[in-house]
Amino acid sequence: MKLEGTHQRSIRRAADGRGACILDQRELPWKIVWVELRSMAEAERAIREMWTRGAPLIGATAAYGLAMAMAEDGSDAALDAAHATLLAARPTAVNLRWALDKVAEAVRPLPQAERAAAAFARADAICDEDVELNRAIGEHGLALFRTLHAKHPDRPLNILTHCNAGWLATVDYGTATAPIYLAHDAGIPVHVWVDETRPRNQGALLTAFELAGHGVPHTVIADNAGGHLMMQGQVDAVIVGTDRVTANGDVCNKIGTYLKALAARDNDVPFYVALPYTTFDAGTATGADVPIEERSPDEVTHVAGEGGSIRVTASGAANPAFDVTPARLVTGYLTERGLVDRV
Amino acid sequence: MKLEGTHQRSIRRAADGRGACILDQRELPWKIVWVELRSMAEAERAIREMWTRGAPLIGATAAYGLAMAMAEDGSDAALDAAHATLLAARPTAVNLRWALDKVAEAVRPLPQAERAAAAFARADAICDEDVELNRAIGEHGLALFRTLHAKHPDRPLNILTHCNAGWLATVDYGTATAPIYLAHDAGIPVHVWVDETRPRNQGALLTAFELAGHGVPHTVIADNAGGHLMMQGQVDAVIVGTDRVTANGDVCNKIGTYLKALAARDNDVPFYVALPYTTFDAGTATGADVPIEERSPDEVTHVAGEGGSIRVTASGAANPAFDVTPARLVTGYLTERGLVDRV
Repeated sequence: MKLEGTHQRSIRRAADGRGACILDQRELPWKIVWVELRSMAEAERAIREMWTRGAPLIGATAAYGLAMAMAEDGSDAALDAAHATLLAARPTAVNLRWALDKVAEAVRPLPQAERAAAAFARADAICDEDVELNRAIGEHGLALFRTLHAKHPDRPLNILTHCNAGWLATVDYGTATAPIYLAHDAGIPVHVWVDETRPRNQGALLTAFELAGHGVPHTVIADNAGGHLMMQGQVDAVIVGTDRVTANGDVCNKIGTYLKALAARDNDVPFYVALPYTTFDAGTATGADVPIEERSPDEVTHVAGEGGSIRVTASGAANPAFDVTPARLVTGYLTERGLVDRV
Repeated sequence: MKLEGTHQRSIRRAADGRGACILDQRELPWKIVWVELRSMAEAERAIREMWTRGAPLIGATAAYGLAMAMAEDGSDAALDAAHATLLAARPTAVNLRWALDKVAEAVRPLPQAERAAAAFARADAICDEDVELNRAIGEHGLALFRTLHAKHPDRPLNILTHCNAGWLATVDYGTATAPIYLAHDAGIPVHVWVDETRPRNQGALLTAFELAGHGVPHTVIADNAGGHLMMQGQVDAVIVGTDRVTANGDVCNKIGTYLKALAARDNDVPFYVALPYTTFDAGTATGADVPIEERSPDEVTHVAGEGGSIRVTASGAANPAFDVTPARLVTGYLTERGLVDRV
């Protein structure tokens, strides 16, 4: 999407074709720093140290990393070693393995001298596929938003979102944000309520930054405020991303999503989950079967902001990172294939 | 309650009887600073600059302030002037006017030379009445907590609370915290989930500090986490304070209370509101009739913590300070007269 007035993807091939440029997301929104990754080791570090984040973007970065490894040494041994090294950079990211496997499959049948070019081409294709996928989610969402806006054509369409399922987590468009960007570009007057999303504040830091860059009107709110805004009729739809949707339709997403789904139901506000079809996990029966990651209490006892972080309590904390929104609270699943009412 | 090993009220008469000692709550939990107020002007400043907060405590501070004014000048003119000055320190605090009126009524019939002593005595009585009221709320809550704990006697009783309706907002015990302190003192193994309560973080800063001082086990959580904890069976009851309960039983309280009430209902967790009977506002029909204060966006865009504050978003923000929890979501109203199911 747009950043500093020009359209940007969150990752692109370097100008000389032999590296990849990414945003250092650790500095956002305070500093816009583009980093050129010139080696597999640099790509691995960018993933491990979370300069880059979001499952699709991690996958794309790893794909370029494997291509850079092939440019250094096109042997099978180098391919296997780089695959293993990059895979270990963020062990739980499913897209990471998927992207690495795609690149490895594409290059392994080829002569060593041709592998680097083919790997870069496959990494490019992975990026393009991700963009197309999210754009398709956006197109289906746009149709939905048109319908919602037609109910109250005299005022902006108010969308509430939680965490960051935006272009900074993908290569472009994002999942939950794709309909917002397309609606804005189509001239629908959309306004976004951005949950700050404690404890890591991805909404206040990243989603707000994205929307500002693209020129989409938005307002950051405390996570506590969404229920009140819905009760006041100030939210036309909630749209969120997801890490996993189980076989029965339960939605695993950033902690606090469930509370917004409850408020949406209580106020007859539609609650949509945007996701690529691959995020449906038919192998897990219900949300109760999903282990919830407990992250460091430091994320709760401290808040990161401009120039550092600050301690906000003298006591200890707990930090469950995700929650489960029951399928009964979901109005629809917005995918690249269209809007699905039931899983 | 206990602080640094000894029982403390949040306000007390100075040792020489001619002033009042308060905690400077702006420094909590990082520094425990007791301030001795020696004049009406100092009391007014402490209220205006929010060294002291919470409706009952503001009232008590103002009562002592009026007594100090009488010690300086016992005339009717001084009484009226001090009443007006103290009342203007925090214009919206209902208890402030109530407390000032009580002191003024008590001293006006008296000779000027007797007014200061009578005013201090009346201020003492206002404090004692507040302590007794909250202790009574606590006793009724203790009975409730005993019943809840008896359902699962093998594990701690897990209570979730939002914002600070604690002894730092009253003279002692607090409203929502009174049953917690009495249960702890009675040997019931109580553990409190403390919502940090963005944007002003009164939970993380004040409630956690109170509980730590009294030795009550507690864990700070992001406001987003409560729904997940309830779904996991880790919350036995929610208890909150309130600024106003309307004639139909709707509860006006700190923003985010409504979301916790929804989660409690969805998970069959009882949701209690603790309040003095005077907080029932029979003159307002429903929560929809209560104007919601919109506070400075700075409270959302910045987070206060140890040693200062930090900016957490580069975008603009909205900051509704309160929300309305519909009466249908309330299990019971816990008052000094007992537990009331319906208003």
